[in-house]
Amino acid sequence: MSVASTFVGSSRSSSFNLGAYLDARSRAINRALDRFLPTARTKPGTIHRAMRYSLFAGGKRIRPALCLAAAEACGGQVQAAMALACAVECIHTYSLIHDDLPAMDDDDFRRGKPTNHKVFGEGIAILAGDALLTQAFEIAAQAKGWPRHPHRTIFQELTRAAGSLQLIAGQVADLEGEGKSVSAGQLRYIHERKTSALLCCAVRLGGMSANCTPAQLSALTDFGYHVGLAFQVIDDILDVTQTSEQLGKTAGKDHAAKKATYPAILGLDRSRKIALQLTNKAYSALRPFKGRAVALEALARYLLERDR
Amino acid sequence: MSVASTFVGSSRSSSFNLGAYLDARSRAINRALDRFLPTARTKPGTIHRAMRYSLFAGGKRIRPALCLAAAEACGGQVQAAMALACAVECIHTYSLIHDDLPAMDDDDFRRGKPTNHKVFGEGIAILAGDALLTQAFEIAAQAKGWPRHPHRTIFQELTRAAGSLQLIAGQVADLEGEGKSVSAGQLRYIHERKTSALLCCAVRLGGMSANCTPAQLSALTDFGYHVGLAFQVIDDILDVTQTSEQLGKTAGKDHAAKKATYPAILGLDRSRKIALQLTNKAYSALRPFKGRAVALEALARYLLERDR
Repeated sequence: MSVASTFVGSSRSSSFNLGAYLDARSRAINRALDRFLPTARTKPGTIHRAMRYSLFAGGKRIRPALCLAAAEACGGQVQAAMALACAVECIHTYSLIHDDLPAMDDDDFRRGKPTNHKVFGEGIAILAGDALLTQAFEIAAQAKGWPRHPHRTIFQELTRAAGSLQLIAGQVADLEGEGKSVSAGQLRYIHERKTSALLCCAVRLGGMSANCTPAQLSALTDFGYHVGLAFQVIDDILDVTQTSEQLGKTAGKDHAAKKATYPAILGLDRSRKIALQLTNKAYSALRPFKGRAVALEALARYLLERDR
Repeated sequence: MSVASTFVGSSRSSSFNLGAYLDARSRAINRALDRFLPTARTKPGTIHRAMRYSLFAGGKRIRPALCLAAAEACGGQVQAAMALACAVECIHTYSLIHDDLPAMDDDDFRRGKPTNHKVFGEGIAILAGDALLTQAFEIAAQAKGWPRHPHRTIFQELTRAAGSLQLIAGQVADLEGEGKSVSAGQLRYIHERKTSALLCCAVRLGGMSANCTPAQLSALTDFGYHVGLAFQVIDDILDVTQTSEQLGKTAGKDHAAKKATYPAILGLDRSRKIALQLTNKAYSALRPFKGRAVALEALARYLLERDR
């Protein structure tokens, strides 16, 4: 069952063939990641196999797809945004590998496959995460750089989203909140950092790769922030409503770990309404693009209506 | 007892007051790191306390000092090199935190203090390492950038040294070599990556911050490579000859873990000779600087003769 059945989107986005779009984009992203990463045979083979195992474990490529779609919305080229899209996906994958470790969320399955440390052991899994984080910056350095957004700005964007005030702050707050009573405000603090920051960064970087104007960047930030929050609310809902098989990871895990989630604090119905409201806010942020953001619209709708 | 008693250095470096020089540099580096890092009170406090705990645990600041000295050798300013020096120290500290984890070397003490995970727990220690690695790139982005060495080059330099082909490759090979028979050639492969790569990177970045010429960069690379190898050979020797109290970490640990080391493969005397030869090669690499590299010379001598 999908999370929301009403979406105040345009007719454009509902007639947009997102399935075909995402398929094509995923293939292009996978090819680029394959080119950017050392081969599995590159010495030491273990670390490159471990990096590739998680990077090619069937991720939906939401963040890089958003990055490429944002580039298009600003009149840019997909290929110019590709390095930044791949950099974000490497950061996302590193964060999953480390989050799944026994010292963190202790997860055995991810995307229907054993987690990295279950296959390669904890030591290599930690190093594979470290290597993917480093690789992200190496890939980002291969981007062209743009007049309004030179390499320095690109790096500041990535390090801010991935650093101790955003992505890592979210994971810390999540760890420290386990088993404790958490308010809706505190939960939003966690979601903003754990999920929204990197999603928003992906969208902003896409715009930057099109040498976007400050006004465009501001609109993309607004979109990315709200889509990112909606994404995490829906993740929380799916953890309650879907089976492990459907999710490809252990369902009900948040509840079992006494983790703060939207459904736990506000109930399922209210959570669904919030996800819809956030998505509509994201959608509204796209107005300045006047129809050129059709892929971003369709992606926002897909994220709201997804069932895994 | 120091590792070597003969050093073919110049009279300049022996009359150079390295103690006073290192004291002044360490203080300047510590002040800069303190400015670059979020305060311990910045939310979430746990992660910033954990990052600062290891970053200010009494490290000798060898890598940043080498970076600053290389800048001076090329006629540059210490302050222009400071962000890069601090970035390298953050990468070094992150690698120590992760290497000390139970899944890796499982060390309880480092620099005479409990290791990060012993104080903050494994989850936070992993995240503190992640955060310091990310912080390193954030700090590097604050460097000025130079005509011959723009931000893109600086980032490529850092990511190459820290990535899966160098620093992480060394740690993987080290992990995989435990308890196995390792040749002198394989051991050199590990040392080049685990230690020499980042040390060499520090020296090269110092040169870059002085907008150094290709010839200067080549000389610094030669110096950094050999000093880096010598540094690790001496570390191996000290692990055998010094007590835990002298080292501030568990002595004899390499031997107990059946780790490949120079003394284990070649014996102590031969290892001492190799350390001396490597240092002299590093020293020779400095000839093109015609006396302007006196601090680098003195640092090479200090690293050879140190007793901890």
